[in-house]
This record gives sequence, C-alpha cells and structure tokens, in this order.
Amino acid sequence: MNFASDNGAGVAAPILDAIVGSSRVNAPAYGADDYTARAEALLSEVFERKASAFLVATGTAANALSLAALAAPWQAIFCHEEAHVIDDECGAPEFFSGGAKVVGVPGGDGKITPAALVETLARFPRGQAKTSQPGALSLSQATEAGTAYAPDEIAALADVAHAAGIGVHMDGARFANVVAATGRTPAELTWRAGVDVLSLGATKNGALACEAVVVFDPLRAAAMTYQRKRAGQTLSKGRFLGAQMEAWLAGGLWLDLARRANAAARRLAEGLAAAPGLRLAFPVEANEVFVVAPDPTLARWRAAGVRFHEWSTRSAPPERAPRPGETMVRLVASFETGEAEVQALLALAESPQRSRNSWPD
Amino acid sequence: MNFASDNGAGVAAPILDAIVGSSRVNAPAYGADDYTARAEALLSEVFERKASAFLVATGTAANALSLAALAAPWQAIFCHEEAHVIDDECGAPEFFSGGAKVVGVPGGDGKITPAALVETLARFPRGQAKTSQPGALSLSQATEAGTAYAPDEIAALADVAHAAGIGVHMDGARFANVVAATGRTPAELTWRAGVDVLSLGATKNGALACEAVVVFDPLRAAAMTYQRKRAGQTLSKGRFLGAQMEAWLAGGLWLDLARRANAAARRLAEGLAAAPGLRLAFPVEANEVFVVAPDPTLARWRAAGVRFHEWSTRSAPPERAPRPGETMVRLVASFETGEAEVQALLALAESPQRSRNSWPD
Amino acid sequence: MNFASDNGAGVAAPILDAIVGSSRVNAPAYGADDYTARAEALLSEVFERKASAFLVATGTAANALSLAALAAPWQAIFCHEEAHVIDDECGAPEFFSGGAKVVGVPGGDGKITPAALVETLARFPRGQAKTSQPGALSLSQATEAGTAYAPDEIAALADVAHAAGIGVHMDGARFANVVAATGRTPAELTWRAGVDVLSLGATKNGALACEAVVVFDPLRAAAMTYQRKRAGQTLSKGRFLGAQMEAWLAGGLWLDLARRANAAARRLAEGLAAAPGLRLAFPVEANEVFVVAPDPTLARWRAAGVRFHEWSTRSAPPERAPRPGETMVRLVASFETGEAEVQALLALAESPQRSRNSWPD
Amino acid sequence: MNFASDNGAGVAAPILDAIVGSSRVNAPAYGADDYTARAEALLSEVFERKASAFLVATGTAANALSLAALAAPWQAIFCHEEAHVIDDECGAPEFFSGGAKVVGVPGGDGKITPAALVETLARFPRGQAKTSQPGALSLSQATEAGTAYAPDEIAALADVAHAAGIGVHMDGARFANVVAATGRTPAELTWRAGVDVLSLGATKNGALACEAVVVFDPLRAAAMTYQRKRAGQTLSKGRFLGAQMEAWLAGGLWLDLARRANAAARRLAEGLAAAPGLRLAFPVEANEVFVVAPDPTLARWRAAGVRFHEWSTRSAPPERAPRPGETMVRLVASFETGEAEVQALLALAESPQRSRNSWPD
Repeated sequence: MNFASDNGAGVAAPILDAIVGSSRVNAPAYGADDYTARAEALLSEVFERKASAFLVATGTAANALSLAALAAPWQAIFCHEEAHVIDDECGAPEFFSGGAKVVGVPGGDGKITPAALVETLARFPRGQAKTSQPGALSLSQATEAGTAYAPDEIAALADVAHAAGIGVHMDGARFANVVAATGRTPAELTWRAGVDVLSLGATKNGALACEAVVVFDPLRAAAMTYQRKRAGQTLSKGRFLGAQMEAWLAGGLWLDLARRANAAARRLAEGLAAAPGLRLAFPVEANEVFVVAPDPTLARWRAAGVRFHEWSTRSAPPERAPRPGETMVRLVASFETGEAEVQALLALAESPQRSRNSWPD
Repeated sequence: MNFASDNGAGVAAPILDAIVGSSRVNAPAYGADDYTARAEALLSEVFERKASAFLVATGTAANALSLAALAAPWQAIFCHEEAHVIDDECGAPEFFSGGAKVVGVPGGDGKITPAALVETLARFPRGQAKTSQPGALSLSQATEAGTAYAPDEIAALADVAHAAGIGVHMDGARFANVVAATGRTPAELTWRAGVDVLSLGATKNGALACEAVVVFDPLRAAAMTYQRKRAGQTLSKGRFLGAQMEAWLAGGLWLDLARRANAAARRLAEGLAAAPGLRLAFPVEANEVFVVAPDPTLARWRAAGVRFHEWSTRSAPPERAPRPGETMVRLVASFETGEAEVQALLALAESPQRSRNSWPD
Repeated sequence: MNFASDNGAGVAAPILDAIVGSSRVNAPAYGADDYTARAEALLSEVFERKASAFLVATGTAANALSLAALAAPWQAIFCHEEAHVIDDECGAPEFFSGGAKVVGVPGGDGKITPAALVETLARFPRGQAKTSQPGALSLSQATEAGTAYAPDEIAALADVAHAAGIGVHMDGARFANVVAATGRTPAELTWRAGVDVLSLGATKNGALACEAVVVFDPLRAAAMTYQRKRAGQTLSKGRFLGAQMEAWLAGGLWLDLARRANAAARRLAEGLAAAPGLRLAFPVEANEVFVVAPDPTLARWRAAGVRFHEWSTRSAPPERAPRPGETMVRLVASFETGEAEVQALLALAESPQRSRNSWPD
Repeated sequence: MNFASDNGAGVAAPILDAIVGSSRVNAPAYGADDYTARAEALLSEVFERKASAFLVATGTAANALSLAALAAPWQAIFCHEEAHVIDDECGAPEFFSGGAKVVGVPGGDGKITPAALVETLARFPRGQAKTSQPGALSLSQATEAGTAYAPDEIAALADVAHAAGIGVHMDGARFANVVAATGRTPAELTWRAGVDVLSLGATKNGALACEAVVVFDPLRAAAMTYQRKRAGQTLSKGRFLGAQMEAWLAGGLWLDLARRANAAARRLAEGLAAAPGLRLAFPVEANEVFVVAPDPTLARWRAAGVRFHEWSTRSAPPERAPRPGETMVRLVASFETGEAEVQALLALAESPQRSRNSWPD
C-alpha cells in the first residue's frame, strides 16, 4: 500500500503508448516536431485561449522558469509559507530568477488570504531602494494542504497582486485534480481569475515526465525559449514531451485520471474521518488526505507495509493539529490507487479501534 | 534521407522496452529506485572504477552541471573555440556556474593542442585579481569536427590543466562513438588520461532522453545532488532515466549502437571522398562526416529530400575549406542509418559528375 | 536635531585628515599601497590574530561578500528575521552568493536564541536534496533592536552553527559601539566566541566610506580577492580605504568615537524613559534608542524639526509594543551628537507633558 | 617617474576641497543629499539632455551595472576582444548581468569596425534557441589602445547595434580625455551618435573614487536604483560621490584636467617617436602612449625608476608590433604628470642612442 506520493505511480497506458509510438520514428529535434505542435494546440483548446506553452521534464523546472519569467533578480516572489517553491525545490526559484527573494506568506489550510498578502506586500514598499521590489505571486493549486482555491479566491488574490504591479503564477502540479474535483473549467481557474503563468503538471497524474509552462500573455513568454534552453530543459528528442502532453489531454484523459485519484482520496478520507481516534487535518479537495492519527495506529500501518509521509505544518488550526501521542500524516492517492488498497488501509484504521472497545488497554 | 542529426533518430528497442517495463510499476521517486541503482553500478563497472553518477535528461544540463562542479563563478572555463558548450547551449555553462567566463581556444580539426592551451592560460595569470581565474578545461569527445582525441592527446592536455590547478571535463555527447571507433576502453579515454568529470551522452545514441554526469573524484560530487535538484533536473519518476541507462549499457548495447552509426558514417565518407568534386573537411573518426561539396550537388541533394546542416567552421585548414561555389555540410549517421540510405546519398553524389563528363553544362 | 541615522553624520577630523593626506600623493592602485598594508596590520593587532582583511566602500558589500564566502548558491543563510541582510539590502546576499536563500529566525530584542536556531535548522535537514542546505549563520552586532550579544551568547549560537557544519558571520555595522559599550575585546566578541567572518563597519562611526571584511580563517578568504574585484568593490585609488581604516583604528579613535555616540544614546534613553508617557522598547546597549511615544509627542518632535524613523518590529514583547495612539520610533546617536541636541530633544519630550497640565490644548 | 597608470595619481585640489567640505556636514544618506542632486543636474547640463545618473565608486561597477541594464542573462555582450570589460574586471559583467556571455570582436588600433561587428553578430542569429541572443554592444572611449572613436565611427557601430535590436554602452573611463582631445561635445560623442548608456569615469582624471552611470533613455534606468543597491554600490554617505562629481564638472574642471594629461602624453609621444629605435604602436589620441622600444632601453628606464606596464596586444599591425629584442609598453599620463617628468623620460630615451653612435657596444 503506497500512499507516499503520486510521484511513485506508473504511467497511464495511453500515454505510454504515445511515448512508444513517437520513439519509433525519426522526428525533428528540440521540440520542432508534430507531437509538440499538437500538444500546444490542445493546450490552447483546453484553456480556451491562444497560449504559449513550453514543455519541460520536471515540475521544479516548470515552476522556476515561470517565476523567472515574472520576477527580476532584485525582486521578491510571494507564496504560501509552506509552498513547494519555497521549501522543496532546493532554491530553484532563486537560481532561475538570478537571486530573487522568495517570501513566505502565512495562512490556514495552505492558502494565502488577500489580507495576508496585503500585509506582506506592505513590507516591500515600491520605490524604496533598500527593499527587494514586489515581483510575483505564486499560488499552489492544489495547495500543500490538499485544498483548492476557488475562482473567486484566486481572483481576489490576483487583484491584490495586479494592483501591486506584479504577475500571478500558479503551481499546478495537481491542477488536474482541482479541475476534476471542482468542475470549474481550466480557464475559470486560471486566466479568467487573473493567473498569468501556469505550471501545469502531468507527471503526478499519469505521465512519465512532462510539465508545461503555460503563459497566457504572450509578451511574458518572449524570452522563455532561451531561458528554457540555457536551463537545459529543451529536450533534443522533444517529441517525448509532446507525445505525453498530447495523449494526456486528448479525449479528456487527464481529467479521467484525476477523477480516479480524487475518488480514491475521497473514500479514504470518509473512512478515516469515521474511524474513532482519527481526524482530518484539512478539507480533502483533491487527491491528498492529511489525517491526524494516534501513534499506535501509525505504527500498525507501518508494520503492515503502508507507505506514507509524516507531515509537519503550521497550516492546521489548533483543534485539528496533532496533540501529544498523535502525528499528522499525508496520504496521496494516484490514478492507480485501487479500491482494494483503500479498503485495506481503512480496515487497518478501524479494526484496532473495535478491539479497543472490547479490551481495555 | 535524414543526415541532419543523430538527435532525430528513434529509440533503440531494448531501451524502449526498459522504459515501458519501468513505467508499469510503482517505484520510489527522485532516483531512489532500483533501476537507477543498477545503472550507477553498471557505470562504475564500465569505467572500472567506483564513480559517482548523476542522471539527467539533456546533454546541456549534463555539461553545465559538470562545469559548475569544476569552476567557481569568478573563474574561466577553457574549451575549443567552436565547442558545443560555448556556442550551442544558450549560455547554460554561464548560468549553472553562476557567471563563469567561457573562453574559446583555437585549434585545427576541432581539437585543442597543449601549446594553444598553454598560450591561452598565460592570459589568465593566477593571483591577478582583475583576471578571471582558471577554472576548468572542457574537451569534446568526439569533437565538433567529428574527430577523436587519443588517450595520449587527452593526457597531454590534462597534464597542462592539472599543472594549472584546474579540473578536466569531457563533453561526451558522442563518447560512445569514440569508444567504438578507437577500441580504447572508457577508462583509458577518461580518468586514466586525467578526465575528472564526464558528460556521458546516451540520447544521440539510442536512448530517449538520458545523459549521465560521471564524477570520477567523489569529492567533486559533494554538492551535485543539490545542484541537480535546484536545476530542475531531478526527475520525480527517476526510474525513467535509470531504466534507459541500464538498458543502454547492459550487454554492451551502447557500443553496438555506436558501431552501427560509425560504420554508416565510414561508408558514407569513403564514398563521398571518392566522388569527383567532393572532399572531406576532417578525418571521420566517429559518426559525423564533414564534406565540402559544389553547390549544385547540394542543391540536388536538397531536391531529393536529403536533410543536413550547412557548417561554418574555422577548424578546417585552407586546403580543405570551401572555395567559392562550394559549401561545407555536416552529415550525421545514427544507429538507425541504413545501408540503403547511405547508398542513395552516394548515388546522388556521384551520378551527376558522370553526366558532367558527357554533357557540358 | 537629526536622530535619523548615524549614516548622516560627517567625518571625524583625523579620518578626514588621513583622506586628504593620502589624496595628495601618488600611490600604487587597487590596494597595493602602504595605507592599506598598515590598516590590515592594525586590524590583526586589534583582533589579536593574523586575519585576512578586505576593505570595501559599503556595509552592504561587506555583508554580501562575507556571506558569499560562507554559503554556496544552493545553501541557506540564517539570520534574525528582521536583520539588515534580509530586509534592507535589496537582495544583495542573494546576488553575491549566487542565489542562496536567506531565512529569518524569530526572536525577541533583535536576537536569535540557540533554541530558535536549532528549530529553524531542523527544517533544513542535511542530505535531503529538495532542501536548501545549511550554509551560514549571520548575527548582527549590535542587533536591529540596538541590543548587543554577549560573548557567551555568541558562543552558544556559534556552537549550534558549527555543529551543523556552517560558518558564522557577524554583521558589525555597529560593532565598535558594542566593543565600547561592553568593554569586551574585539577578539572576545568575534573569533574567540566562534565568529568566522566579520563585517566591520567604520562608516556609521566616523569614517566616510569604509568597511572591512575580516576573515579569521585564511582558508575562507582564498577567493575573496576575486569576489571583491568582480563585485566592483576594489577601488582603484585603494589608499582611500586604507587611510580611513588606519586613522579610524590608530590610537583607539574608533572606540573614542563609539563611546561618544553611546554616551549620547544613554543620556537620551535615560531622559526619555523618565518622561511621562514614553517607554523604551529595548534595552539600550549601543547607540540606538527605540522608544514608544504617544503620537502627539511625535507630532511635536516633527514640528520642531527632529528627524527620526518610525519603526515596525516583531521583536518587542507585548508590554513594550506600541498601543493604539502610540508609535515606536528609532533615535540614533552618532559621534557628532552633542549634549545640546540631546537636551533639546529631552526638553521636547518632557515639557509638553508639563505644559499640558497647565494649558489645555 | 610613474607612467604606470592614471589610477596612481592623487586628487585634484578642488575635488579634495569638495570632499572635505561635504564631510563636515550632516546630510541625508544614500544619495538623497544636495551634492548628488547638483551633480546630476550638472550631468544633464553637460550632456545637453535630461539623463538619469547613478554615481558609484568604481569603474568596474559602472560598467557592469550599465551592461546589466542592457543585456539579459541569456544574451551576449559584444566588445573589442581586448576591452577592459572582457579582460580586466574578473568577470564583473558576467556577474552583474546574471551570466551573459561577453564576446570579443577583433579589430586594429583597439577599435571595432562595423564590418567586424556585423560578422560577429552573424554568429548569434536572432530566434535560434541554442544561441545566446544579442544583448549589448560595449565601446571603450578612449580604447584600450589609447585611440578615440570619432562620432561618425560611433554612429556607424550604433546603427549596426540598433538594427540588431541591441543597446549601446560606452565605457568612458577616459571619456574626458577624448572630449578634451577631439573638441567634440559630450553629446556628440554619446547619445547623438547612438550611445544609450555611458560609464563616465572621473577617478582616473582627478577624482578620488567616483564614476557615473549615465542613462540617456530613462526607460532603461527603471531598475538601476535596485540593481545599484543590491550590488552594494549605494554609499550611505552618498554626498561623497555627489561632491566629487559636482566639483569635477563645475567650471569645466574635468576638461582642464584631461587637457593637462593629454598634453603630457602628446609631448611624450612626439619625443619618443623622434628617438632612434623607438616607434609608436598606436596613434596617441588621449592620455596613453603605447611605444615599442628595444629591451636595453627599457632596462635603462627601469634602472632609472620609471614605472610602466609591458603591453601585449593583438591590436597593432605587424609593422608596428614588437620584433625580437623589442617590447611594447604603455605609458599613461595623468593630470599630475609634469613637464620635468616628461623631459626626464625623453632624456633617458634619447641619450643612450647618441652614445651608441660614439661607442660600439
């Protein structure tokens, strides 16, 4: 039972077929191939707007390139204080941007509020030479707490950002899961709400290694071709990326895969919430379940071979945070997570509670 | 007939099988998988030495990471004046190294000579604050002229570099072709001759997207894990890279593939050299053929659908350089280049010369 | 009455004389002059240890060069969350270090505690590729709250840092004031307590534009000559810096100047603390006074031409923080601050309280 | 007799007086003082155009900031192959620009020709992702060979640059000498001829440490305030820079000083050219004399205490380059170089030749 990450999953069959197909032919190098052209056209279709897309192999590269397109070296990038871009990319945004400062904004449930953003921006006044100037806002969708920003929440934040003269980036490593979970369109969740650049992740959701930097304002994309190349992210057999993205989007596969992962997470969440002694740390709005469990329960899971990560966060309110003898853990469902796996974990969660009812300990 | 680049070729069947196999299972993320472990073990075996290996998706990333491991931001990287790292990577070495200066060293046949290196180093005196300090030597193997450095040539250059206190990098995008062509061992062509870090390229030689930074001195690799991660080159489904490298090396597949490409290039070179009006610009020592041809011949090739690149170089001696009415072109053979393709091109090269004898034009 | 900053003060007469004297002669360029040599010798004498010193023109450059000598681009620099290096240098540490992440550590009275440092370091585990690795600790002496670290406080923090494998920097923009105020020796406050690199500031304390990067471990200084040059901090008429530093240190002038500033600050603090309605926000341990005052008092000061900065900080405990109708301000005394100026401000602080009793307004 | 560099000279009396005067008063920090305001106004007056000016302490900083304002990290900066910015600043342009590539253009007499620039630009085609994109042209005025570009030469180069979409920087470390020597106006030699950003050097010509980045198009200066600050080049007692620049420009002092240096160089050149066995390597068009002399002559100079630098250059045509037994040296005159010094050197140059006629050696 592997709930450690959706990164561990395999590759969805249609995507693997596309990779194999494209690997058997000779094709122009560096992204000048037909697969990539079709993938880019599909992206514009899905987002209902002519957008510039740049395919890369990792989410870290997609985020860092996006942020480097928005923020100058002497500027600051604002994100949630526990965002992937500030904590989990070994300083990639600083590297790609040439030394921009990544500034954490606190907030519950993994989300930034407009008020918190305003308060943070106030510490970076425009025109004051000694202060890194505002450069970009980065929002994670889904958030690090597995929650989702609604379109109006995004719009409220984007309004603050744009009023401050900065662009808005969305780290969409699990964007597909939010589209699938909320039923909102890709456009509603991005440019219609004010997002300027999106890192769209396919890897965690069925692809092998494929992410897209989607730039809604073509002017912002002017230098991306060069920034991507000098970052070593322009694959020579670029059809590898094009074929994946095409297969992922075609026929709505990406949303089918996301729905599977979301559904598994939802069943897991419902079961765990109902188990005595356990409680959810955050609303489950995508494919991640954060649960606070008694340490003996977790020991039992581990003994049964369940794989998951312990989680430390300032994002949970006191009533949901772990108390002594408890630990918060993250369980991630992927498109491959099966019903049997979910039931097996739930059985492990519940059974000892039943026995606890029978035999005092 | 595609002789534009070995980048355009497909993927060798055993490597594609390995990708497919590894994509069907769940595996630990970020290179902690068994495929990667086995690939790294094979690399140490092939190089007859325990080496640190870091798999990445592009040659540009492999080169830039290698150079950043050797040279500090205030140092200079010396390479042939037409090397890939100075001309064709949009400044990636400058980016990854934090601003090191890449300095071209002139030389015939794509090669640096010890004398030219000594002369260039003299312009960068140690201890003079105003001068970028010597940082690294980068050698391309095969060179940009399709030639190969012999072990004693490498050793002579490495001796100069080490005496100047700098490390030696080898850009081995076509290293396999040189091993196959010369019969020298990987060890003889690298660390035994003084190479400290190798970019080992599999992509041009049958893989999909896979290169290895091979660091022979583990001390030099201390920070590479972090440098790779913050460069967005640590794939989450890292087994994709491991599976390719394992399959590429296993059973000597890499050398079989290189031999095929080399053989096609050799037959092409022999045929073209024998064709009236054509001459080779450089010795053919790997899988690239540089040929000087009359412009009408090239027009005929193009008309027949032959794909290739025109080539501009200072590396050819005057007697081999193009004269008015001639152009130098590069023809690259890959592991997929078939005998039919070679013969078709040769036919195009020769026939019009015969007709020229019969009918004046 | 200018209490805005010690940056506004003029230049102490002996230092100005030294500048003039050195400006009338011809001298070797780029710091190879005798003034600089004598200044460096004096620094070693003052610090009771052979140290490498690099003179530069600004405190920002001194700090950023120091941090770049300690931290690699993929590492994190830890400092107080309100330190000058994180808030007031427009990202200079990020720039000079090639993109290191500057991480704020919270703490009262402008100080980091060992416990807070340990807690912060725990978020940056060694060997975890996704996390910026620990790179350096930066302590401000005096702190941004005008307080001073005692030698044992420094030692406790340096022990934590060194145990974590990172070097310790001290931002000594007002180091002279702390030496003068505490009576501890420069050595006790730096390398004997574990400081590896010191930015020693003369500018705020009587010089015109002169700071020294003092590197106690010569190994850490190996590249500083080049780092300084490529940062544009190697003055061609370098004797300008040498002459200032020599005159500043010679005969203990630096401590005389600092004592004057400290004494003025102390008298100011005593008077303000005794004034009704005012209270000190932090202990006054150098030449800065942070005072919480009723807004009408401040309006009066402004009307009388007093110059000062409002101050926003998380470093004051609730009982000392401003309440509605109050504001915290910073008053800085320099070596030029005269008794008359102090008394004039104190009169403004006190009289209106008295007059308010007599005449309603 | 010090002909090593104009960097070694002292400070002109009016400038020293201005420094002293400004150092005796309290003034707003960070360049918000009246001296700086007046200096900026004078610069606009001298250049007959409202320009943005940024004062810094070194020429390296002025050049690097200028180039960073013109070229993005993924672009190339073109300069003469022996320019100061490529050879003598330890990689400062690479550092400040975030890794731009500095590309040398060959040319006689220290000058780039339009044809050579066109040829070099052709190697950096627009829109080709693998190639660093054209970013800036940097011209040295006077050149590294002591020659001067005429306005129409500048205009021809600027036309090529602007047609290629890149801005033009002028490294004016000895700009004053060219204005004084040619009688052309500052405007004619800069923006009227197409220069976008000028590094205007005062330090070599009578100041202590003062250079200005003069940006003729205000749009290009938008971020310079922040770039200067994070480069540690914003002096806290900024009036030091303002006072120097004001005194330097006021009443045409800068041109008086330059005329003195130029005149000394001209007399030196005439005398040396007439001495048997010596010849000038380049036309003397500012305050530098490059002379090829027999080694015994140079030995005699050294024995007499003359200080100068040997010079290695590819910029001299064969007939003027040193032959065996000869060496090229650079002699620099400053505003302080006196007639006696010039005559003493000329006496040393000539006398032994006379004796050689009498007594064979």
